[in-house]
Amino acid sequence: MNKRIAILGSTGSIGTQTLDVIAHHPDQFTVEALAGGRNVELLAEQIRRFKPKLASVATRELADQLSALIPAGTRILFGEEGLLETAAGTDADFVVTAVVGNQGLEPTIAAIEAGKTIGLANKEPLVSAGHLVTEAANRKGVRLLPIDSEHSAIFQCLNGERREEVRKITITASGGSFRDRTRAELEGVTVEQALNHPNWSMGAKITIDSATMVNKGLEVIEAHWLFDLPYDQIGVILHPESIIHSYVEFKDSSIIAQLGNPDMRVPIQYALSYPNRLLSSAKSLDLAEIATLNFRPMDFDRFPCLRMAYESGRTGGTAPTVFNAANEQAVAKFLQGEIPFLRIETIIEECLQRHSVMSSPQIGDILEADRWARETASLLG
Amino acid sequence: MNKRIAILGSTGSIGTQTLDVIAHHPDQFTVEALAGGRNVELLAEQIRRFKPKLASVATRELADQLSALIPAGTRILFGEEGLLETAAGTDADFVVTAVVGNQGLEPTIAAIEAGKTIGLANKEPLVSAGHLVTEAANRKGVRLLPIDSEHSAIFQCLNGERREEVRKITITASGGSFRDRTRAELEGVTVEQALNHPNWSMGAKITIDSATMVNKGLEVIEAHWLFDLPYDQIGVILHPESIIHSYVEFKDSSIIAQLGNPDMRVPIQYALSYPNRLLSSAKSLDLAEIATLNFRPMDFDRFPCLRMAYESGRTGGTAPTVFNAANEQAVAKFLQGEIPFLRIETIIEECLQRHSVMSSPQIGDILEADRWARETASLLG
Repeated sequence: MNKRIAILGSTGSIGTQTLDVIAHHPDQFTVEALAGGRNVELLAEQIRRFKPKLASVATRELADQLSALIPAGTRILFGEEGLLETAAGTDADFVVTAVVGNQGLEPTIAAIEAGKTIGLANKEPLVSAGHLVTEAANRKGVRLLPIDSEHSAIFQCLNGERREEVRKITITASGGSFRDRTRAELEGVTVEQALNHPNWSMGAKITIDSATMVNKGLEVIEAHWLFDLPYDQIGVILHPESIIHSYVEFKDSSIIAQLGNPDMRVPIQYALSYPNRLLSSAKSLDLAEIATLNFRPMDFDRFPCLRMAYESGRTGGTAPTVFNAANEQAVAKFLQGEIPFLRIETIIEECLQRHSVMSSPQIGDILEADRWARETASLLG
Repeated sequence: MNKRIAILGSTGSIGTQTLDVIAHHPDQFTVEALAGGRNVELLAEQIRRFKPKLASVATRELADQLSALIPAGTRILFGEEGLLETAAGTDADFVVTAVVGNQGLEPTIAAIEAGKTIGLANKEPLVSAGHLVTEAANRKGVRLLPIDSEHSAIFQCLNGERREEVRKITITASGGSFRDRTRAELEGVTVEQALNHPNWSMGAKITIDSATMVNKGLEVIEAHWLFDLPYDQIGVILHPESIIHSYVEFKDSSIIAQLGNPDMRVPIQYALSYPNRLLSSAKSLDLAEIATLNFRPMDFDRFPCLRMAYESGRTGGTAPTVFNAANEQAVAKFLQGEIPFLRIETIIEECLQRHSVMSSPQIGDILEADRWARETASLLG
């Protein structure tokens, strides 16, 4: 067996680690297509090493730069069309969606419609349009395999189990870079401080989302769709060490948990190799060396973004779309130094308050709600 | 579906909790036969409540006493024959082996030969004659479902997984009643102190076995046979809270663990209801309330009985038989106040040193080695 892989977002954190996993198992995987963003140098290196048939970058100009750097044999595209073609236009069996934010929505749906198995790292499409993404996956008989460590954990805990016997799933949260600060101590924190995550090395957007707990909120909504569970059956607990990646309680009060050192290559590889497990060079977990695991209840007053995520998820329709898009815009403004850290929360809150929720939105409605929320967040400043 | 259950050892700790589980699910289970020991009053109560077709006690005298206490409709037997008939002579589908020690060996094999699914709480037969018990189970296509919390945990963690992808299993050990004492501080400890287990309420013999770590050694040997794994792939870790009941590491460095409050009704019920899970009234685990889980490496110098268990297991043949029988005799002597606590270890050690191991023993050889070890241990005083 040799799976043909396409990666949307190959130059990002998940993308490069996906290629690392593939490089360790050349007998199992080949690279069919790579979509990068703006890092043409890195993408050129990846193309020389993995020889995909297709590669795509953000703009025509970058495509021209890329062409000059690589040997013949790889078709080069760019922009939205390039992303869609990488997702759906090749012979890949398996598409890893690792772009950042809601730009992954249309390519994800296109890949599903083309019948490809999805390795889902880009959670925003499921948050923003969960009913459409899952409906398409069910209709096409396509599997959505989670790559997020928490969802991979839950997916693994459900192996061989009956879904109707699940009492509750619990997603663990490290608490992010500011977990030990009070709300008062969040005044005036810098971008650099926010980007310093204690456990996981990740991209900038998701690291900020960890500090605001928006990321955990997105994960709750993602879990709702992936595992078809009501929000009452999805909990969050603070676990600073990120060793227990998440767990499932069954109706007999038995809990199954998935553990490991924080290393994204493990869940990435699990999605790629599912239902098999392959050898991994990830360091084995030694609990005696870790010595102590700590847990604290989640505090919804300390982390209001998580409360808003639950509320948006329960409201449904375009509410989670707006939650996500407002956050994306607000995080971009924070990273550019335009707003203070705590303003991220209030921008999301104000966008949600101003939004008239549409239930059962179609793709056009979602794109419009997304656009509206970004514009509104942008103007709020 | 209604499973017909026979219980060997119904008046002990596991037996009474098995009946508690059955009482909570009258639509799922009926009681076919009960074998008690000497507690005639309790057995009579159980018979009046669960109306088995057959009951058995230790002696003819106790059988006569029992007859006077119960209404007609339950056949009464006694002694070894009664135990064998309870195990193999009824219409039960499922036999819970919850007697203490190696007296369960012949009834367990008889139940397997009669094609009954086994709920295995009595670990000594698997320790003492693992190759015979597993050979019989494989030949008859009979499942051995673990009831020990550690083995139930591992069994649950293996759900839906491939055995060849297991890298290692790790059994957690609370450390027993003397876990915080040095070896020097074990001089002169009393029976009462030894019986005061910090986490689990269990019978006397197993509580002493926890304090000496013999119990963990028996569990390692049991795991070797139940999960068909070499001793190098079976580890033990100290985990004082007994919340993680055991775990499995797979070759991709992912660990699956089973957790819960210490409550034997959960693994008992899991064995009875397998492959389904039923509602349980066991308290849900709240990790935020527990707050901290601790782990320490196992110390084979502090707990030499565990080292001897591994050595016996690796040697195989009649070595684990002698390890187990010498321990049973030594524990009985300690409980009767005849020897100090630390003498249990040296009695086991001396018996193992004097024993000429026979490889591939048959049932007669095992019974003979068992008898020899008890006699030797007894004479060592």
